[in-house]
Amino acid sequence: MRNVSIIGAGLTPFGERWDTSFRELVYEAATAAIADSKVEGKDIQAIYGGTMAPGRLIGQEHIGALIADQLGLNPIPSVRLEAACASGGVALRQAYLSVASGAHDIVAVGGVEKMTEVSTEEVSTALGGAGDQEWELFLGATFPAIYALMARRHMHEFGTTEEQLALCSVKNHANAVHNPFAQYRNAVSVEDVMDSGYIASPLKLLDCSPITDGAAALILCASEKAKHYTDTPVEILASAQASDTLALANRRTLTGLDATVVAAKEAFKQARLQPKDIHVAEVHDCFSIAEVMAIEDLGFYAKGKGGKAVQDGETQLNSKLSVNTSGGLKACGHPVGATGIKQAAEVTWQLQQKAGKRQVSTCDIGLTHNVGGSGATAVVHLFKRGD
Amino acid sequence: MRNVSIIGAGLTPFGERWDTSFRELVYEAATAAIADSKVEGKDIQAIYGGTMAPGRLIGQEHIGALIADQLGLNPIPSVRLEAACASGGVALRQAYLSVASGAHDIVAVGGVEKMTEVSTEEVSTALGGAGDQEWELFLGATFPAIYALMARRHMHEFGTTEEQLALCSVKNHANAVHNPFAQYRNAVSVEDVMDSGYIASPLKLLDCSPITDGAAALILCASEKAKHYTDTPVEILASAQASDTLALANRRTLTGLDATVVAAKEAFKQARLQPKDIHVAEVHDCFSIAEVMAIEDLGFYAKGKGGKAVQDGETQLNSKLSVNTSGGLKACGHPVGATGIKQAAEVTWQLQQKAGKRQVSTCDIGLTHNVGGSGATAVVHLFKRGD
Repeated sequence: MRNVSIIGAGLTPFGERWDTSFRELVYEAATAAIADSKVEGKDIQAIYGGTMAPGRLIGQEHIGALIADQLGLNPIPSVRLEAACASGGVALRQAYLSVASGAHDIVAVGGVEKMTEVSTEEVSTALGGAGDQEWELFLGATFPAIYALMARRHMHEFGTTEEQLALCSVKNHANAVHNPFAQYRNAVSVEDVMDSGYIASPLKLLDCSPITDGAAALILCASEKAKHYTDTPVEILASAQASDTLALANRRTLTGLDATVVAAKEAFKQARLQPKDIHVAEVHDCFSIAEVMAIEDLGFYAKGKGGKAVQDGETQLNSKLSVNTSGGLKACGHPVGATGIKQAAEVTWQLQQKAGKRQVSTCDIGLTHNVGGSGATAVVHLFKRGD
Repeated sequence: MRNVSIIGAGLTPFGERWDTSFRELVYEAATAAIADSKVEGKDIQAIYGGTMAPGRLIGQEHIGALIADQLGLNPIPSVRLEAACASGGVALRQAYLSVASGAHDIVAVGGVEKMTEVSTEEVSTALGGAGDQEWELFLGATFPAIYALMARRHMHEFGTTEEQLALCSVKNHANAVHNPFAQYRNAVSVEDVMDSGYIASPLKLLDCSPITDGAAALILCASEKAKHYTDTPVEILASAQASDTLALANRRTLTGLDATVVAAKEAFKQARLQPKDIHVAEVHDCFSIAEVMAIEDLGFYAKGKGGKAVQDGETQLNSKLSVNTSGGLKACGHPVGATGIKQAAEVTWQLQQKAGKRQVSTCDIGLTHNVGGSGATAVVHLFKRGD
């Protein structure tokens, strides 16, 4: 397989984009990535798009063709990938494989979700399709409830506290203050989180990622040709994905995601690296407890030690490991299909030293971690600054 | 890129499977393919699943993870592909690329749709998402209406007749009589089709493919290892995909699908073959006019000559070119996400001389042609019998 590099990245501002359609979000992110990469439309040989639930959210399927059409890039092949909230991550993996295989030299990969066209109830139902519809959603287990079960068990087994969970949100909001693309650019305090009202105990409103419109895009290129387009390519060192049972009740454990563990081990093996080599990580904090579990499952901390690490400030910007410099899903926002690509865009900009006031000073190797549902899919990518 | 072969194929019976769930359809097809291939579950390294609209049809997304879970194949990577009615075809292409790249040696690829859980109106709305929701479906243009526009124009420009269209259905039903997996195993006459009532003039009920539950699966293997599992591998000679505008109104022509033309040319170029080399073809006859356009766009007949070729019996079983030996979408049935995989299963069995009473006697090279919506996606694969 050939080496593959990112040569351009683009985002839309994340938020409640009432005046902007699904198609317009796609166009905004894709044209930004194309402009950043210096490729021309005619150089792009295929499109991979990740999106979770446009059938329910905007009444539209056939999203690959829609993207090619909206960008005027017919007749190149264009396809949609879906893995719930990991749709962006799996799209990146397939785009990566298509270039690594030699089938294509340059491809565009994006993620998008338009979540504000329907009622909040309908969004909750659509998102419930990320879990087990028959054995969870039908019985009333929405996603805050599912992650609340994991949080409660993590607190019971390891003494993790609600304040430690709150500190994830506090950190992520602090990072988002410096991210022009973020949905919430306001700082919050531990008291703000603790007083924000229970959604599903022990998770409160400010432990939960929001409903967001947004899109993200990357241009991938065979590494051997990347320098033709940019002086600062970012190489994809590893791309790994793993699966687990759809329903939480069938899992080995409630205090971590085995799919993350498997994908992370595979990614570190591919890249011949270890967790200690990582400088910046975008992890899937759909809920604050998810960030605590992620830093454990990815191998940065032993199981049960994540809450303490957050409390000690070890995951803050320019601390031991800079986690979610974008603001994470919590504060940057979580347009579900876009998240996996946004994570890679943020790491790309960090490695290119383009992250402004949220720049990680020593930043050679980065990681992204994208989860579908309650962990039935996990995708891990590793990146390094091109030489 | 490495050569890739099919080493096993499996189908569910197609039809109104009231007693069988989405998960059960997946299980039926996948276990049949695995048994046919002689691989064991532990040999399978990744799963690719094509399905169009489970979010609307069964309230479930995250289909890749669901499939891995249902088959007990966690934690291998599993992902869903969507390209409307070409979801199966694009899943096959991505599965093919993953083996060709060297990332995996053996993968499972499947397609599934469960369409009878909701009302016919809701199915029509879900299928409308294959076209342009904003500029077609919202304005009342369902798929029979869209293909009726193409039929009317084809008749106007080339003198194609309703009887010629009817003969496609007559042939496909005749083939389906011999296919144990087919939804409709009854022969129909031209009179039956002509008297079946207009759905959208000039298309009548028996010009239209039905609503179907079903699933299909294949096991792909690096060709160099295929003989370890089967004496009759079928090699994938080419895999090509192209896109066109989502809305019919934006096309260059109404009398053909440019995406099919582009994908076919690319596929024949990859395989260094020509249309005259093909012995068996499964083409996308969602409506009878689609089969006439397909045999033209694929290069078997000049534009405008397809109707005459059908009338002359040139596409009948063991005639000049055996088209839709399975019964096609019309008579075998059209569970949309499964169709692209079912086509490849049928061609596989034809090349392996396993097609029973519908066997094409001289059968070395086969083609599949899978279309999304009204032609915004087309996928063409070429296959040959392994040596």
